[in-house]
Amino acid sequence: VHRQHVAELQREIDGLHPADIAYILEALPPEDRLEVWNLVKADRDGEILLEVSDAVRESLLADMDKPELLAAAEQLDAEEIADLAEDLPEDVLAELMHRLNAGQRERVQAAMSWEEDQVGAIMDFDMVTIREDVSLETVLRYLRRLKELPEHTDKLFVVNGDSVLTGVLPIRWLLVNDPAKRVSAVMAKDANTFHPEDDVTETAQAFERYDLVTAPVVDANGKLIGRLTIDAMVDVIREESDAEVRERFGLREDEDIFASVWKSLRNRWAWLAINLVTAFIASRVIGVFEGSIQKLVALAALMPIVAGIGGNSGNQTITMIVRALALDQIHPDSAKRLLRKELGVALANGLIWGGVIGFVAWLLYKNAALGFVMTAAMTLNLLLAALMGVLIPMTLLRFGRDPAMGSSVMITALTDSGGFFIFLGLATLFLI
Amino acid sequence: VHRQHVAELQREIDGLHPADIAYILEALPPEDRLEVWNLVKADRDGEILLEVSDAVRESLLADMDKPELLAAAEQLDAEEIADLAEDLPEDVLAELMHRLNAGQRERVQAAMSWEEDQVGAIMDFDMVTIREDVSLETVLRYLRRLKELPEHTDKLFVVNGDSVLTGVLPIRWLLVNDPAKRVSAVMAKDANTFHPEDDVTETAQAFERYDLVTAPVVDANGKLIGRLTIDAMVDVIREESDAEVRERFGLREDEDIFASVWKSLRNRWAWLAINLVTAFIASRVIGVFEGSIQKLVALAALMPIVAGIGGNSGNQTITMIVRALALDQIHPDSAKRLLRKELGVALANGLIWGGVIGFVAWLLYKNAALGFVMTAAMTLNLLLAALMGVLIPMTLLRFGRDPAMGSSVMITALTDSGGFFIFLGLATLFLI
Repeated sequence: VHRQHVAELQREIDGLHPADIAYILEALPPEDRLEVWNLVKADRDGEILLEVSDAVRESLLADMDKPELLAAAEQLDAEEIADLAEDLPEDVLAELMHRLNAGQRERVQAAMSWEEDQVGAIMDFDMVTIREDVSLETVLRYLRRLKELPEHTDKLFVVNGDSVLTGVLPIRWLLVNDPAKRVSAVMAKDANTFHPEDDVTETAQAFERYDLVTAPVVDANGKLIGRLTIDAMVDVIREESDAEVRERFGLREDEDIFASVWKSLRNRWAWLAINLVTAFIASRVIGVFEGSIQKLVALAALMPIVAGIGGNSGNQTITMIVRALALDQIHPDSAKRLLRKELGVALANGLIWGGVIGFVAWLLYKNAALGFVMTAAMTLNLLLAALMGVLIPMTLLRFGRDPAMGSSVMITALTDSGGFFIFLGLATLFLI
Repeated sequence: VHRQHVAELQREIDGLHPADIAYILEALPPEDRLEVWNLVKADRDGEILLEVSDAVRESLLADMDKPELLAAAEQLDAEEIADLAEDLPEDVLAELMHRLNAGQRERVQAAMSWEEDQVGAIMDFDMVTIREDVSLETVLRYLRRLKELPEHTDKLFVVNGDSVLTGVLPIRWLLVNDPAKRVSAVMAKDANTFHPEDDVTETAQAFERYDLVTAPVVDANGKLIGRLTIDAMVDVIREESDAEVRERFGLREDEDIFASVWKSLRNRWAWLAINLVTAFIASRVIGVFEGSIQKLVALAALMPIVAGIGGNSGNQTITMIVRALALDQIHPDSAKRLLRKELGVALANGLIWGGVIGFVAWLLYKNAALGFVMTAAMTLNLLLAALMGVLIPMTLLRFGRDPAMGSSVMITALTDSGGFFIFLGLATLFLI
């Protein structure tokens, strides 16, 4: 890039929204990415670091020295610093904490003390609080004195002398009611409140369900300690859905598309290794029946069909169950009913598709018995897939695990080994 | 359920938020669902129908007669009626349109004229508009006269005499600025605006990126015609991510977990049929090498490992590429680079994991050449998986298709047939 172009690029970057710069950085290969990153004004580094994906953030932070990192972090709010903290080198973090004032430090530490999936880790502290014994007129005058309201402010939080939340006053109501009225006469007393230890996924679902824009976070004594906003919840929803897809296919973390080969290998190796083990087990199941295959080599050609269709069908069942579990729609009473339905679908699919492929096998190998064995094996393996497709995610959940994680690998392992065993077993019994 | 319990249940239902009733309905098996549905007061039917999933909505509508359907629909806004319209029987819809006043009917028709994935189909008409030549004081007085502001109102839309949008006035700014100031002096002129023909996915990404709560929709002449709200965008994001997972596993639509066996079959059969065809093709590839398998039966036991690991690895690549494509992060220049990276990862995985399994095959079958063929076949199939994992989603996108849809089936078909062909082909060349 020529010097003249650089100046032009710099001007363009200065005019962009931080989220747009983040987007450009993510779409650039590493060298170009760092070149553009160096053109970004130091006072905007912080907000851009918050916008980029974890993987890209890592690559940007690696390029910054200590003074740059400190300058970037100092632009941020407490909860934003906490968000960034785990990616910062320890000496930078220590120096940063040292530079903060006591109140900020306490907030950063409080935010860092919560797990990533707890409300405490994503709440902010940009709250406007009012008392309930004043008039709306007084509230309006108070707001005017503030000069600026925090982003997304759609309601004011009403607290008493002990900072205990007693209600919320939606701005919409503040605007349409008689200014002479008291806050206590207008406010909503039964607002949706959350606790810092609440699970963020469930909280995001509540935001969706009740169409919230912001909500107060209170401690065990009802004291107001923070605020949640819809933009943080949208991030949670997006991240959850990305994580579900990733985990189904064994990508451990968000991968920078331009990550090095080495990083990609590390991100993906665990799943491949597990799959290798399950594939090896399936291979040994086949090994047991090598004698039968030698006598009737058609078995070798037909067996992957039984295994494959079982895996597909099982994955469909799991996809549906995982989603219903995430929405908390499955209760113990309904689990049995669900299992019956899935077994019914499997039986029908087995008889229909198993029948079709059994008929084709009969024609192809001029062997009616082989066709019947094929149909029976398909049906049994689809029943196995349905049973396991319901039980695997529900069991993972019961043991406190994420039902999406690893369920694809498990169902495929079971329907592969199971499919080979059922088909080759039946064939050995009836055909050899 | 006893009569006394019914009365109690009725009271409880009356006290619940429509979204909570929707949630309960979704988690109940069909008979209980209809029983609870009949307890819901008629004037709440409409809002609950909007909250439940498409599949459950269908089951509830099927239970309602014409007067009930009309009563429910008449409670709703124009864009909500449009949303429900496609699920209503034709005679009910005709009667409903007849009963609406001219303005409402026009809005419903306008909303129905847009595709489901266009902004026009999800915008609402709850806008508060003001003129730019009045003072903030006047605006405040005007709002007070309205008695109620639409939900989510975080900004007022400033229009001129021709209804052309000239800016937006965030409520936050209205509250903190001197009431004597004019709207034109305070408003933002460069607000994010959308067009009714815009794609909802991209619009939702813009909402996320710029942390919007509401945004104006304007026509080609800049005339204000509607409004978008974050809750509709959250629904889009949620629906997109659900659809991605579903489509990867061949569930055509959102399935009611208590759907009948017959409905489930219809929802899933297409994918199973396609998989059956691809599995059959793979089976015929094996059929070509039956002679080799008969001579060296170990091939039958080892071949699923080559195919399976290729499929897993290809799906990992596709997952990453689909996500990057959805975020619009892949440009023609970077595609080559991405392909090189994925091929590098595949080569490394092939040599490492292929080497491990080749070594195990050597030990197991006391056949060094078999081990080498195994390693070579794994490496080649992983390279094929990487190549196709990049090309399939990018090709689907180029032809205007959803890159997530069907890509899993395609990669698995290619790595299965390809894996069998490569492994059995190499074995026939070097071992038989």
